[in-house]
Amino acid sequence: MTPLRLDPNRLFPVDPRTRALTRELYAVAAPLPIVSPHGHTDPAWFATDAPWTDATELLVAPDHYLYRMLYSQGVSMESLGVPAHGRPGTADPRAAWSVFASNQHLFRGTPSRLWLDHVFAEVFGFDVRLDAKTADLYFDRIGELLATPAFRPRALYDRFGIELLATTEGADDDLAHHKAIRASGWHGRVVTAYRPDAVIDAEHEQFRPALAKFAALTGEDVATWRGYLAAHAKRRQDFIAMGATSTDHGHPTALTANLSPAEAEALFQRVMGTGSASAADAEMFRAQMLTEMARMSLADGLVMQIHPGSCRNHNRALHRAFGRDKGADIPTRTDYVGALRPLLDAFGNEPGLSIILFTLDETSYARELAPLAGHYPCLTLGPPWWFHDSPEGMRRFRAMTTETAGFYNTAGFNDDTRAFLSIPARHDVARRIDCGYLAGLVAEGQIADWEAAELAVDLAYNLARKAYKLDVEDVPSPRQRPA
Amino acid sequence: MTPLRLDPNRLFPVDPRTRALTRELYAVAAPLPIVSPHGHTDPAWFATDAPWTDATELLVAPDHYLYRMLYSQGVSMESLGVPAHGRPGTADPRAAWSVFASNQHLFRGTPSRLWLDHVFAEVFGFDVRLDAKTADLYFDRIGELLATPAFRPRALYDRFGIELLATTEGADDDLAHHKAIRASGWHGRVVTAYRPDAVIDAEHEQFRPALAKFAALTGEDVATWRGYLAAHAKRRQDFIAMGATSTDHGHPTALTANLSPAEAEALFQRVMGTGSASAADAEMFRAQMLTEMARMSLADGLVMQIHPGSCRNHNRALHRAFGRDKGADIPTRTDYVGALRPLLDAFGNEPGLSIILFTLDETSYARELAPLAGHYPCLTLGPPWWFHDSPEGMRRFRAMTTETAGFYNTAGFNDDTRAFLSIPARHDVARRIDCGYLAGLVAEGQIADWEAAELAVDLAYNLARKAYKLDVEDVPSPRQRPA
Amino acid sequence: MTPLRLDPNRLFPVDPRTRALTRELYAVAAPLPIVSPHGHTDPAWFATDAPWTDATELLVAPDHYLYRMLYSQGVSMESLGVPAHGRPGTADPRAAWSVFASNQHLFRGTPSRLWLDHVFAEVFGFDVRLDAKTADLYFDRIGELLATPAFRPRALYDRFGIELLATTEGADDDLAHHKAIRASGWHGRVVTAYRPDAVIDAEHEQFRPALAKFAALTGEDVATWRGYLAAHAKRRQDFIAMGATSTDHGHPTALTANLSPAEAEALFQRVMGTGSASAADAEMFRAQMLTEMARMSLADGLVMQIHPGSCRNHNRALHRAFGRDKGADIPTRTDYVGALRPLLDAFGNEPGLSIILFTLDETSYARELAPLAGHYPCLTLGPPWWFHDSPEGMRRFRAMTTETAGFYNTAGFNDDTRAFLSIPARHDVARRIDCGYLAGLVAEGQIADWEAAELAVDLAYNLARKAYKLDVEDVPSPRQRPA
Repeated sequence: MTPLRLDPNRLFPVDPRTRALTRELYAVAAPLPIVSPHGHTDPAWFATDAPWTDATELLVAPDHYLYRMLYSQGVSMESLGVPAHGRPGTADPRAAWSVFASNQHLFRGTPSRLWLDHVFAEVFGFDVRLDAKTADLYFDRIGELLATPAFRPRALYDRFGIELLATTEGADDDLAHHKAIRASGWHGRVVTAYRPDAVIDAEHEQFRPALAKFAALTGEDVATWRGYLAAHAKRRQDFIAMGATSTDHGHPTALTANLSPAEAEALFQRVMGTGSASAADAEMFRAQMLTEMARMSLADGLVMQIHPGSCRNHNRALHRAFGRDKGADIPTRTDYVGALRPLLDAFGNEPGLSIILFTLDETSYARELAPLAGHYPCLTLGPPWWFHDSPEGMRRFRAMTTETAGFYNTAGFNDDTRAFLSIPARHDVARRIDCGYLAGLVAEGQIADWEAAELAVDLAYNLARKAYKLDVEDVPSPRQRPA
Repeated sequence: MTPLRLDPNRLFPVDPRTRALTRELYAVAAPLPIVSPHGHTDPAWFATDAPWTDATELLVAPDHYLYRMLYSQGVSMESLGVPAHGRPGTADPRAAWSVFASNQHLFRGTPSRLWLDHVFAEVFGFDVRLDAKTADLYFDRIGELLATPAFRPRALYDRFGIELLATTEGADDDLAHHKAIRASGWHGRVVTAYRPDAVIDAEHEQFRPALAKFAALTGEDVATWRGYLAAHAKRRQDFIAMGATSTDHGHPTALTANLSPAEAEALFQRVMGTGSASAADAEMFRAQMLTEMARMSLADGLVMQIHPGSCRNHNRALHRAFGRDKGADIPTRTDYVGALRPLLDAFGNEPGLSIILFTLDETSYARELAPLAGHYPCLTLGPPWWFHDSPEGMRRFRAMTTETAGFYNTAGFNDDTRAFLSIPARHDVARRIDCGYLAGLVAEGQIADWEAAELAVDLAYNLARKAYKLDVEDVPSPRQRPA
Repeated sequence: MTPLRLDPNRLFPVDPRTRALTRELYAVAAPLPIVSPHGHTDPAWFATDAPWTDATELLVAPDHYLYRMLYSQGVSMESLGVPAHGRPGTADPRAAWSVFASNQHLFRGTPSRLWLDHVFAEVFGFDVRLDAKTADLYFDRIGELLATPAFRPRALYDRFGIELLATTEGADDDLAHHKAIRASGWHGRVVTAYRPDAVIDAEHEQFRPALAKFAALTGEDVATWRGYLAAHAKRRQDFIAMGATSTDHGHPTALTANLSPAEAEALFQRVMGTGSASAADAEMFRAQMLTEMARMSLADGLVMQIHPGSCRNHNRALHRAFGRDKGADIPTRTDYVGALRPLLDAFGNEPGLSIILFTLDETSYARELAPLAGHYPCLTLGPPWWFHDSPEGMRRFRAMTTETAGFYNTAGFNDDTRAFLSIPARHDVARRIDCGYLAGLVAEGQIADWEAAELAVDLAYNLARKAYKLDVEDVPSPRQRPA
């Protein structure tokens, strides 16, 4: 068996002086509470506080980072217990775990490896590596621990030092789990975010059923443009009541539009008509709705997140067999300069508007996003996202955005994950990389050490609170921020 | 008050051995005269040698790098004294300076911070940082110094060790300031460059008035294609008489065209017609004019600079309220491979032609620009421009162009600035970064130390002189180049 | 004369600890045999084993990396002895060598410099640098050595420790040299690869003559769609008989198509018709043929290589005067996400299919290629290609692909060269850079040292064998892989 030990200096710059500076900054950032303003954990976990059953169900079957990589090397989705269309996988959990354990070499050099190492060593206390020989040891021990009170969702929330955790729900969600969390009197601050893609995107496979639920939940006639908009406004209030401070929009492109009311209504009628909308109409409707959402944000204060540029379900056969989110989403080139202009022409200088921009196209960092965020008061840059939520991805983000946008037009870190146990690992990676970047600026004489220390706290904690307007609601935090 | 001290090793690599190598190379490059072959300083300064009045007027109100960043964080343009449509700002200069001083944290990690540190410490001699507490101290002291002879434009030109400084004037400029400089008998070498955008770009808001002045200054009938071209040829001679060795073209794209004479004339008539030109005609006319300018460069020897890819005045409301150049220019994706082909088909192998290419789209460095410049004899790569005139921007430029284009297809450094006091700072940053890059090649065993020393002088001094043909006129330089 | 000494630590990271780690990994990778599964050496060399005549003919005249750079600085192709349309250059070889020798400074910071240093020091044993003063010394000594048995092609093949070397032949090649190699009984394993561009690309200048040879070699009626496809299938078998394990496709874009049989046949008829095909038809036919080639690969097991994104013969005047491959090929933006989808929809989940993707557009590494290869079982990433076969190019490749695709979805190294003597140099550069990258992961605590050592062997040796299915034929290798 090979040992598993986390290097306390991991991800720090290798030059001894810069490493020492990084260590000092990290000592400031590491103990700060975790603010997780955007993610995809399941609110049912915190509503019911039911224990997870086994390592495969918790760690492998729901994690598209993991089964993507295994699939690319010829491992079948079935053998890993991946659910198909929401039905639980049929593989034996122990056998699936063994397949996963035997292929750990595939993750060398990837962030999944970093997150897994952290989860295994820090959360579960393992001191030997996962491999074919230790697969059963891992599977058994994780199963035992998950059955204990200390490994229930709420206990881990506290142990992880989480101050706030946002989930993401669709416009057709009844928010029952969030209501249950609030009704339970639990001190944890788990909030929702409004993600209306399924009722905006006529190309979404759930478009019609989601619209029906949307109508039922709001009592509005969503077949009329006026009723449809009123339904959004109502649901946004429902989400605000469940702690939401943001909306989220996962469109194929960043296109916005600002049609006249008559044009917008005519487009709406075409999109909602009995036939299927043309691709051009569907795209234009998504574009128009971003501007409508911005208009509503001016009224109700919700921060907008735009997550564009993913070609979803690229592998059609896999999509047919297993459904959405199965690792076959591929980034594409994404334009922001022309795409955002209609929205910015309408509301770009409004002091009350706040839009957080994400990208999967790193070429836009220095060329488009940093210049836009470094000018428009309403724009903030979200952290490196998805495939770029990684040490090199974070380094490229800082290196390509800071010189034009500075640090204060960025939104701190998002873990954006379904993998609850990896949340501390992901924030830890971000804090390590950011402290290393700041230490580099000090070592190069660009900023003073006290400035770097201030920034280390801002990047790990303050900027996320500010960007997501999290101070509107004062809640006790499990740890106090250092003076 | 916090101290302001410039680290003598700033921007050098952090590894001790590479840092020591860098220090040796920098000792060679640092004392070389400044050659500034492309920029936007005001020739009136050197014509009149009148003193500047205060810190705000000199350092903040004209600097779009600074008010861009402040505006992005909700600071109004008015409060900073930014001029609107050429009318001086209305803010109290001391109050505007205080706003600027109180927001210095926004510039952490940006090149503006490096330039400001250098100007404050080296040019004005401050040893405490600018912040809310020292705002008045700074404002008063700068005001006092600006009133002394040592801080007049010509005195600073000498103090900065400038050997040549190019300004940029439009085709409708009467060059009165340049004439006055020459008539004054002053030893400084301040030259102009021919920037005919306003008489070429039918979408430029000054297109019609600029054309009228263009006609008046040349006596040509610029409403005819033949007269219009003749007017350009004449004005180029006017500019050459004022020391110009280059033209400059700031088009939205790098598109070139090589129409037949009849097609070109028909296009010209459509563009000049009474209605407004179509966007397609305007773009095609800019494209054709790049080729016409290349043809004239073959005749008169002027070096062409092409600065494409900025979406100007992206923020329409701000453009309406304040006019051009207010920080709302955003880079866009830029193609060179197809765009330059018509011009290169016509003149790409002409030994007399010299074109310096710039980009705001760093993705073109390794993919397009280095391969083009590493093949066509007429093409040279300009230095990293505007948003990329920064430590990381310069490192990316060298890392992405050198392996294909080498060093000798690059044009040395341009400061490209309106901020005269920052010129030594900007050249210093470039020399530090380039020496660091060369030291890295030595430390990695790619080149010998003597080669790096030769290159340090070439990058800081010789390549700019060669690319801009500055040796055609022999002028005494304030310092001698080391043997 | 200045000394020529290869730094034993060249291209290693400069930080002492990481450098020491790199040295240990390199000690494992350096002695491994060379596997060269894709390149452009001339099989006639190994068939005839005839000596090369002089330094210019061997090293300068055929190397577009070298004359490209010299041409960009005004050195004429004629003066370097570059062949025009296959006719040998007319320059005096010694004079051409002297021009080359006098311009060595142009290669500072380029991979050509690294390869030349290695060839001069390691292959020819020089200990002084090539420059104007040593030009004759070099020319004479190289000429003497080339006349000796130790410098014949087969002797160098053994001396270089080559285990397998693939050349690339067109579909219209009779493979006579490969037959001669096999008939000779020589132990060297020189194989071919099937590159049918000239019979697929209707815009290729050799399209019609190549089709005629293709018909003659196969006896098929290539004017019919059925006969044309049958001819490909036959020739693929011919190539397999000469050791081929791969095909190669150098299309302008990565576009694929999956037309119905009737549509494909109609397109074929238009492309083969008497007039010249439209650009759109030519592009669609190339696209369709990639899918046809994938279909044939499923049948015969050949690995597909796709090398898209080069705008060939950009300099029309030079192309007219000298022919193809004269340094005027320029990369363009390349899309993969949409372009590959038709092929992937058809065969993307077939276990028997293997496609190696290359790019000249580095922006696709992190955005498109790593996510595609990190999901589809049939896709593997080829190494950094052509302009990116360089230290920085390799570092960017690893930094931008590993976190999403890992190491095991990559194909090891290709030298892809016509310059036989540079093959050890190129593999050495790749091994040095890869070992440095792995050492960085160890120094940052991301992987263990034993994992890095395993990867050092995989990247240098195993992955190329696996990706190109080289173990299907068991041949004795000149050196044994360490246990």
